[in-house]
Formats: sequence, C-alpha cells, structure tokens
Amino acid sequence: MNILILGGDGYLGWPTAMHFASLGHNVCVIDNYMRRNIAQSTSSEPLFFVPNLNDRAEIFKSVTGKHISVIIGDCTDYRLLTNTIKDFSPDTVVHYAEQPSAPYSMTNYESAHLTLNNNLNTTFNLIWAVMENAPDCHIVKLGTMGEYGTPNIDIEEGWLDIEHKGRSDKFLYPRQAGSLYHTSKVLDTDLIWFYVRTHNLKVTDLKQGPVYGLSTKEADMDEKLMPFFNYDDIFGTVVNRFLVQAVADIPLTVYGKGGQTRGFLNLKDTLQCVELAVNSPPPSGDLRILNQFTEQFSVNELAEKVKSAAKTVGLSVRINSIENPRKEQEDHYYNASHSGLLDLGLKPHYLDEDTICEMLEKVILYKSSIDKKKIFPRVKWAT
Amino acid sequence: MNILILGGDGYLGWPTAMHFASLGHNVCVIDNYMRRNIAQSTSSEPLFFVPNLNDRAEIFKSVTGKHISVIIGDCTDYRLLTNTIKDFSPDTVVHYAEQPSAPYSMTNYESAHLTLNNNLNTTFNLIWAVMENAPDCHIVKLGTMGEYGTPNIDIEEGWLDIEHKGRSDKFLYPRQAGSLYHTSKVLDTDLIWFYVRTHNLKVTDLKQGPVYGLSTKEADMDEKLMPFFNYDDIFGTVVNRFLVQAVADIPLTVYGKGGQTRGFLNLKDTLQCVELAVNSPPPSGDLRILNQFTEQFSVNELAEKVKSAAKTVGLSVRINSIENPRKEQEDHYYNASHSGLLDLGLKPHYLDEDTICEMLEKVILYKSSIDKKKIFPRVKWAT
Repeated sequence: MNILILGGDGYLGWPTAMHFASLGHNVCVIDNYMRRNIAQSTSSEPLFFVPNLNDRAEIFKSVTGKHISVIIGDCTDYRLLTNTIKDFSPDTVVHYAEQPSAPYSMTNYESAHLTLNNNLNTTFNLIWAVMENAPDCHIVKLGTMGEYGTPNIDIEEGWLDIEHKGRSDKFLYPRQAGSLYHTSKVLDTDLIWFYVRTHNLKVTDLKQGPVYGLSTKEADMDEKLMPFFNYDDIFGTVVNRFLVQAVADIPLTVYGKGGQTRGFLNLKDTLQCVELAVNSPPPSGDLRILNQFTEQFSVNELAEKVKSAAKTVGLSVRINSIENPRKEQEDHYYNASHSGLLDLGLKPHYLDEDTICEMLEKVILYKSSIDKKKIFPRVKWAT
Repeated sequence: MNILILGGDGYLGWPTAMHFASLGHNVCVIDNYMRRNIAQSTSSEPLFFVPNLNDRAEIFKSVTGKHISVIIGDCTDYRLLTNTIKDFSPDTVVHYAEQPSAPYSMTNYESAHLTLNNNLNTTFNLIWAVMENAPDCHIVKLGTMGEYGTPNIDIEEGWLDIEHKGRSDKFLYPRQAGSLYHTSKVLDTDLIWFYVRTHNLKVTDLKQGPVYGLSTKEADMDEKLMPFFNYDDIFGTVVNRFLVQAVADIPLTVYGKGGQTRGFLNLKDTLQCVELAVNSPPPSGDLRILNQFTEQFSVNELAEKVKSAAKTVGLSVRINSIENPRKEQEDHYYNASHSGLLDLGLKPHYLDEDTICEMLEKVILYKSSIDKKKIFPRVKWAT
C-alpha cells in the first residue's frame, strides 16, 4: 500500500512512518518542521536531540533496509500537496499536519492565527487534493477527544441520535473544546463532514486522547529513531510531563483540583489504532469516527499512579496542586465510549506499574538533560 | 452610539449603515469590494448600477445631511481592523464581512479557499480586535439559518437541551449545512462560541434566512441609494430571482421538486432585527442566538405566490422545474423556531400580494436591463 503521512516529523508522525515502512508499505512523509520551529522559539525543546527527518530516514534505512521518502514542505501549499498526491498515488493519507499544542494556541494573536489557519488549510488542501486527484484514497485524520470537551452526558463515538419533541435524527456528537487548538479540530471535523457528504470522500477520524510513551518497536532499534519527547508545558502531554518531574525530583504539577478526567493511550497503541484504521477503510461517503484511547482517569489518579510506580524504582515523588493556567472544569462527569477500535482488534497496553517503570528508567538515562525552567506553565488561558 | 459595520458595501451592509445613520448614530463602514469584484468576475452584476461606497456616502449626506465614514480595506488585515477599532471606539460592531454566495463557494478550489479563509479570518480578526481593544463592545454577527440545514427535528434558536442515557446538557444546536459558504458560518459559530466562553465576549448571532426586497426607507429617497439587487444564480436570493424572471417572461426556475423549505424575510425586517439586537446587547460571556426570519414556505409555495401576485399587475407567469444544481433534500421536514426577535418587538412585513406587486413594479422599471444569461444556474454541487 502507498501511505502518505502529513506531519511525518512529529511525535506520532515519525513512529507511524517507521511502523508502516517496517510492515512493508511504501511510505512517504511531508513535514514543514513547524513543530521544531515552535519548540525552539518557545524554549520547549525535547528531552533529547532528534535528528532531522532526512537523517532519521537514513538511519532507519541503515538499521532496517527499508526506505522512507521525505519531502520537507508545507501542506498549506496546494501545489506541493497536489503534486505529491499525483506523483505518489497514495492509497491512504494519514493527516497529522497540524499545530498540536493547546497552550501555544492560547498564547497570543499570532499563535492563535497560525494554529487556526495552518490546521484548517492543511485539512482543506488535503480534502481538495484527494477530491481532484485520488478520490478513492482513504483519509485517516487525527482528531482529538478534546473536541467533545467535558459534557454532562456520556460521550459516544462521533455521532449522537437525538430525540426532540417526538421526532429524531442523527448528528455529529456536540463538540465544545477547551482551547483554540482543540477548537481548530472541531472546525476540521465540520469541514470534513461537509465534503464527505457532498463529494463522497472516504474518511476515518481518530479522536485521540492524550498519548504517552517514549519509544516504539522500531524506535527501540536505535536511540536516534526515538520520537520527540517533550516534558514542557507547550508540547509535553501530562503523563510525559509527570515522568520527567518524578525523575527531576519536582512535585508533580497537578493543575487545580486535578479532577480533570481524560482518555489516555500508549504511543504503541496509537500505531496499532492507525494500522487498524488503515487496514479497514470505510465506504465512500462515510465519515467513520473512532474514539482512540484505552482507559480513562483523572489527573489526580494519574499522579498517584506515577508516584506509586516511581517508588518501586527508588524515586520519592511528591504531588503539588498549582494554580490552573487553563479555563476548564476541574471536577466533572466523564464517560466516553471507545469500542470501535477494540472491535477492530485493538489489544491495549495499559498504564500499569511495569509500563510506568519502564518509561521512568528511560527518562532517568537523560536526567542530566532536564531543564527545570521548562516544567512550569507559561501560558495562561484568561486574558 | 458608535456603530462599525464590516462589509458595509453589501446588500445588507449599506442599508444597515443608512438606517443607523438616519437614527442619529455615528456610523463607520469598512469594505474591500470583494462582492463587487466577484460579481464582475462571474458576470453576476446587479440589475442596476450601484455607485461606489464613497459616492453613496456623499449622496446620502446630500439627501439627509447625515455622515457615514467610509474605509475601503480588508478585515482580514489585522492592523487595519485593530486601528479602526482603536480610532472609532465602537459600542457595536455589525459583522457582514463575509463572502455570501453559496454557489460561488462551490465553484472550484480557489473560490472555496477564498470563502473559507475570508470568512474565518474576518471573524477571527474581529474577535481579537475586540478582545484586545474594546472588550465591552457588542458584536452583532450575521449567521445563517442555513447552518442548521434541514434536520428531521424542530429547529430551535441556537441551542438544544439534550437528554441522553438519563443525563442532560445544553449544546449549540447541531449544524449541518448545504454549501461550503454555509459551512464557513458553522465554523464561525464554533469559533465565536469558543472565545465567548473563554474570554467573556458579548455576541449576538443572527441566524438569518434568505432575504428579499429592493429598497428600504432610506433607499427610497434616492434611486442611487438602493442596495445591490442581484437576480443571477450566484448572488441572487430566490425571491429576487423569481421577481426578475416573472418580469422577463422566463418560467420561474424551481430547482428539482421545489419542496425545499426555508424561513424568509423582507430586507426592511433585516434592518428592524439588527436594530433590535443592537439596542439590547446580551451580558458579557453570552452568545445570544436569534433566528432571523418572519415566515417559512417551500420554493413551490413561493413560486405560486409570485405567479398569483404577478397576475394582478398583468404578468402571466409560468413555473418550470429544472434539474437541481445543488445537493440538497427536495422534500423534507422543516419547523424552525423564531420567537426571540418577535419578543424583542419585531413587527414583520410579510410576503403578501401587495409586497410582491410593489417589488415587481420596481423591477419592471429596469426590465430593459435584465440579462437573461444570468438567470440559469452555472454552478453544480457534485464534482
């Protein structure tokens, strides 16, 4: 299968590229290094150095013999994207080419403008490039569980049957997100659903929860193949941040009351989920939405899990509630359905003690690189 | 009151500007002539010549003694918009600065790209310019009834209480529009609602149905003050198109079965509605949504109304169903609530025989200017 990965340099993009190349697919990645540039300009560099995409593809080839094609370019450039799709003829495009940081999107006008315009236009261009050049191509789009927000009713997988005054209809599940980044994904979904129903596109939208983890089967082969591992407030997801704080002997920074509940998953399961989606495309004209996480817990529960596991590797961890930089509910109902990917065959890796310890041990190797200035939140939601 | 009107050259913008200036408010308009330029480039010029915005403001001044400030510029230019808001200190901004044609938005990549980016970025810039410079300013945003689409349940005014598995919450009413233009307004609403709830903006969203009419009280004072009157497939709304077809002795072009039902209103009622909204701003942090139309009927009912009224002015009108260029339900449930503006005091002008005859008589004055090439649909939805 020809698999084109937009945003192939990212935390998920690069492991996905290696995963499909290892499985024997033809893989091409595009990336404009936006995430690298933002990380540098906000002093949010990852825990360890990550070679550029061309270098990583070379290392991967030397280790596995498998080739990954690399294009450094911007998917908001329609000519580039169209030409790539014409030349590469993808069977599947995996779309990660979005500015992924919620705090960054809340920093100022410029960061919000960049997030909105980049994310909408990469999605818009992909839709058109596929419509005009590869209408049978399956688009696998990374959405986010954050689109749903924290409603007071059960979260279903993308759709909701609504009964109202004795009549009924089925709609996209109501979405109300907590940051401009997450809101840009709400808009993505509206846009994609419009073109799916008017132009018979074939799309899977993976509404993913926060991901954790440092490595994957392929990255284990060479340290230089590991994805970005961010522990800062801009790009670091909460589990990864807690792992570094535990190692650096900084109390785990719980934002506010810590009752915030989300659905989490291991980076290895992201790869499984994307593979399951790619292998079973929906019919044309169908927007298939799958909630991509394996278990849900609150930030407090998460902090306790890390604390307890850390003890077994000799780390004494404290937990500190700090002022919440975000505007969000800190104590709320949360019950999200996620059976679609399990039905497709997902075998979850749970966040158990062994998994946490394994990650902590990897982080310990880089302990001397931890920059404590990156730990505390620098972006506040309210103006 | 200082009232800034974005898109002040348009079919609604210019009459709104004259209306508020006549009432004694300080009025400033901004427009980039996008609608004029698209009309010209798609051969969709209005029935009669409309002077440019500076000339219209001069004519208006000579007739009424009232001043309207004019800025020719683009609201996607943040510097321009911010400086205008700093200098003019609006109490209210009325936001019409969007590409308003559904068929144009469905023409090709370029037109879709322009629609999406113009509409989202004018809205985004307005949000930020107000947040940063005039946080108490009331934003009155023109939305569209088309955002709701044609659901199989009753359409409420913007919000819906949903009960699901024994729990309940209130959400934006589900929206699923029939064109990219209408979808851009769905995205607008998502974006505005995000910033309203995180930054306490004060917004009224007027979800308007298709408008008809040639004139208003102020435009009646001088022919050169009349707004654009389009009868083409790109900018002409359905009632206006039927009026011209009736006069030109062309069978009324009903798209498909003609069971398409919408909520309509008279241009004069648009002015009333906007005035009512401006005079009663919602509290900060509130997104007030009002459905702005006065009566609903199907395209077939509309064609019959025009036919029957036309008879009384001596016109013999035929009705012809033509192939529907759009992808839409031609026979569907439609029952939309619209009590909010009536509660605020709206006194509707209904589409009765007298109103239709009055409009037909105005159109007859320009009969020799009708260009029959502009009548039939040139843009098809499906690719």
